[in-house]
Amino acid sequence: MKTTVRNIYKDTDKYLNQEIQLEGWIRTSRSSKTFGFIELNDGTFFKNIQIVYEDGMDNFKEIEKLPLSSSIKVKGKLVSTPEAKQPFEIKASEIEVEGYSASDYPLQKKRHTFEYMRTIAHLRPRANTFNAVFRVRSILAYAIHKFFQERGFVYVHTPIITASDAEGAGEMFRVSTLDFYNIPLTQDKKVNFSDDFFGKETSLTVSGQLEAEAFALAYKDVYTFGPTFRAENSNTARHAAEFWMIEPEIAFADINDNMQLAEDMMKYIIKYVMENAKEEMEFFNNFVDKGLIERLENVVNSDFGRITYTEAVELLKKSGEEFQYPVEWGIDLQTEHERYISEKIFKKPVFVIDYPKEIKAFYMRMNEDNKTVAAMDLLVPGVGEIIGGSQREERLDVLEKKIIDNGMEPEDYWWYLELRKFGGTKHAGYGLGFERAVMYITGMSNIRDVIPFPRTVKSAEF
Amino acid sequence: MKTTVRNIYKDTDKYLNQEIQLEGWIRTSRSSKTFGFIELNDGTFFKNIQIVYEDGMDNFKEIEKLPLSSSIKVKGKLVSTPEAKQPFEIKASEIEVEGYSASDYPLQKKRHTFEYMRTIAHLRPRANTFNAVFRVRSILAYAIHKFFQERGFVYVHTPIITASDAEGAGEMFRVSTLDFYNIPLTQDKKVNFSDDFFGKETSLTVSGQLEAEAFALAYKDVYTFGPTFRAENSNTARHAAEFWMIEPEIAFADINDNMQLAEDMMKYIIKYVMENAKEEMEFFNNFVDKGLIERLENVVNSDFGRITYTEAVELLKKSGEEFQYPVEWGIDLQTEHERYISEKIFKKPVFVIDYPKEIKAFYMRMNEDNKTVAAMDLLVPGVGEIIGGSQREERLDVLEKKIIDNGMEPEDYWWYLELRKFGGTKHAGYGLGFERAVMYITGMSNIRDVIPFPRTVKSAEF
Repeated sequence: MKTTVRNIYKDTDKYLNQEIQLEGWIRTSRSSKTFGFIELNDGTFFKNIQIVYEDGMDNFKEIEKLPLSSSIKVKGKLVSTPEAKQPFEIKASEIEVEGYSASDYPLQKKRHTFEYMRTIAHLRPRANTFNAVFRVRSILAYAIHKFFQERGFVYVHTPIITASDAEGAGEMFRVSTLDFYNIPLTQDKKVNFSDDFFGKETSLTVSGQLEAEAFALAYKDVYTFGPTFRAENSNTARHAAEFWMIEPEIAFADINDNMQLAEDMMKYIIKYVMENAKEEMEFFNNFVDKGLIERLENVVNSDFGRITYTEAVELLKKSGEEFQYPVEWGIDLQTEHERYISEKIFKKPVFVIDYPKEIKAFYMRMNEDNKTVAAMDLLVPGVGEIIGGSQREERLDVLEKKIIDNGMEPEDYWWYLELRKFGGTKHAGYGLGFERAVMYITGMSNIRDVIPFPRTVKSAEF
Repeated sequence: MKTTVRNIYKDTDKYLNQEIQLEGWIRTSRSSKTFGFIELNDGTFFKNIQIVYEDGMDNFKEIEKLPLSSSIKVKGKLVSTPEAKQPFEIKASEIEVEGYSASDYPLQKKRHTFEYMRTIAHLRPRANTFNAVFRVRSILAYAIHKFFQERGFVYVHTPIITASDAEGAGEMFRVSTLDFYNIPLTQDKKVNFSDDFFGKETSLTVSGQLEAEAFALAYKDVYTFGPTFRAENSNTARHAAEFWMIEPEIAFADINDNMQLAEDMMKYIIKYVMENAKEEMEFFNNFVDKGLIERLENVVNSDFGRITYTEAVELLKKSGEEFQYPVEWGIDLQTEHERYISEKIFKKPVFVIDYPKEIKAFYMRMNEDNKTVAAMDLLVPGVGEIIGGSQREERLDVLEKKIIDNGMEPEDYWWYLELRKFGGTKHAGYGLGFERAVMYITGMSNIRDVIPFPRTVKSAEF
């Protein structure tokens, strides 16, 4: 009977002492004169399965010489091996070569650096660490959809190509079909974007929030999950030019509802990954980030802290800690401050709310004090900020003034303003950087190692 | 008790004769001297709920004058109305205004054209048709994830920004941060892309297939679901510059496994939408495309046909039908031919396989006859082609020759070729245009009406 390594591990009794058939790739191989062992991985499960074959087999000589990563089809009997490390193995009666690998296969047994692995991104998911990372990435993505869909949220595909600068959130990539050898100019020597594909200047989106707000005011609860882009020249372990973001937006909701949603979501998705990627999570805990599982379990089981920015600044000043960036009311909190708050003061995830209006975006709701806005950042131990959000300004006149005060043109935001004109409601939302979440849950420390084919400054390989 | 319209419809008994609290938008409103009726929609459910209020209410005068789409909070008792059209209504004890709408709200009771609705894409999800379309879009997206995840497929985010032309599938958008007023040139007067953000020429992806293949050769079964782009100047009802695509890729699998997967997927996702968007599907069946549900049920319950291209050409020639494009072996099948095959000959979905190599992409597996490749298109009644795929060429030498014969450079495909060098396997995959699927399942006929904020030639509004 044809099956998979996953099935065998998950439903062992069904296959034990049965003749089975498997296909997969050789991860390791060793042999003596009369028999050989192959660790086979078929991609369906993190763990390998051991194949034993003997020299009675016609093609024994061929099989024992197969380079690593050759693909084979195996027929044999699954037997339990109570005395060995592995719980069972397959006694092969037949091994057929599906595809030979060349002897210069780069993933030999020795350890490679993550830097080197990035140069073979087409092969690295075959190595343990990356195999685990990208399966967790997939399961986490699904957990996010599952969480929101089970609560009746509508998934919105907000546009990738945009003619607006959204929230002025960062440098943008231009999208164009103009001929670079012959950029058309208008009479007053401006680029004539009316000749471009969309008839105007367009870029890659930095956020789907504004469009998501339009949908929240029709469906009440919505979320986006799509790629976003920053053309920022920051070559750090935490920045990529292309990354995925989740942006829920909820109507008839304030900043407290927003915090509750974020807390529920974080707990749900972490729990889902721990339950559905057990082997991978154990691997990360053992080899990438010791203490990872304990830290994540702490998140799932604790009530997140809640504190205002003003209180946080007070606590940081009173802490006696020497920070690289001195703390003063009005500053943007740095990662060192954020980590101190969540790791030292709270020892768990904590929401910081009500930030000075000067350091936050124009669409955040002005508080009664006229000095702070209803912003909300979630800080987690080990990382710092993982979620940023706010209650949105629903008052048309306040929002209009805010746009003008920020030096922007109300006409550019005509439809966004209309959302407040035609039956606006209190509403709120937040953004979760998907790669940040993958890093947090796997313990991986470089964003390039959690994206299948990362795009960063001067790098767009594959 | 605070609840939603969805909860009330789904779990009526729990709320009947209870004091409840609802928030939502006014869809219609009428009143007499002593009482008024409001059809309230709160976004959670396709149907409205009727609110009855009386002049005993303090703000009766205010409420009866509220413009459409004003948002309100209602307290009252849910009572059954066995004698009326609707099954129940809410006898309001209190109605509070959350957000006033202006009297020039564009969605008044009269019908608007779909063309007009596109100009108010920020408001159109509040109208019945679009509310139904975009909820079905969300549910369909989830059904796709659910189908693949339940089968253990790994979801891969393939890159959006790419330096390669993938399959030469179409015109591409360039992505750049170069200064359009000062395009840097090399000594030999070429654009100097080494100054660009990624240090080379980059574009928006037309397909994630090649990268998905790399992951299939690690995980066996994978799928992509992300945005893809075509800079084609085709202003039709079926083309958008930005659209989403699903691309599964399966290893140790041939064209038959590929067809089976596509058939299973189509049945699963259609069934899921019919079960989870009943009210919306009834609406489409009644007002957008009569016969829709019967057609979809036929798909779910029939075994898809299978036929070779050569047989299909024979049948078309023998049919006696006058086609606009004459049929001859070697032509690319047109929509009229595809529809004839599925609607007239098979009366159900049908796979056409083994197309002439000249009209298909370089990566498709060459058949024994050396004239055809293992391509596979799924044709469905009412639409024509909805899925295109193939078994992939896994033989290194054959693929290399194919690349050269197609005038491409093997070096540009070094990593794609390496997938065949290091333990390649038979593998196959296909692409499903997500918007085509939404159109097929809703009966909507213009792609602009199934994308929240569509991007087409000369149009990138919102």
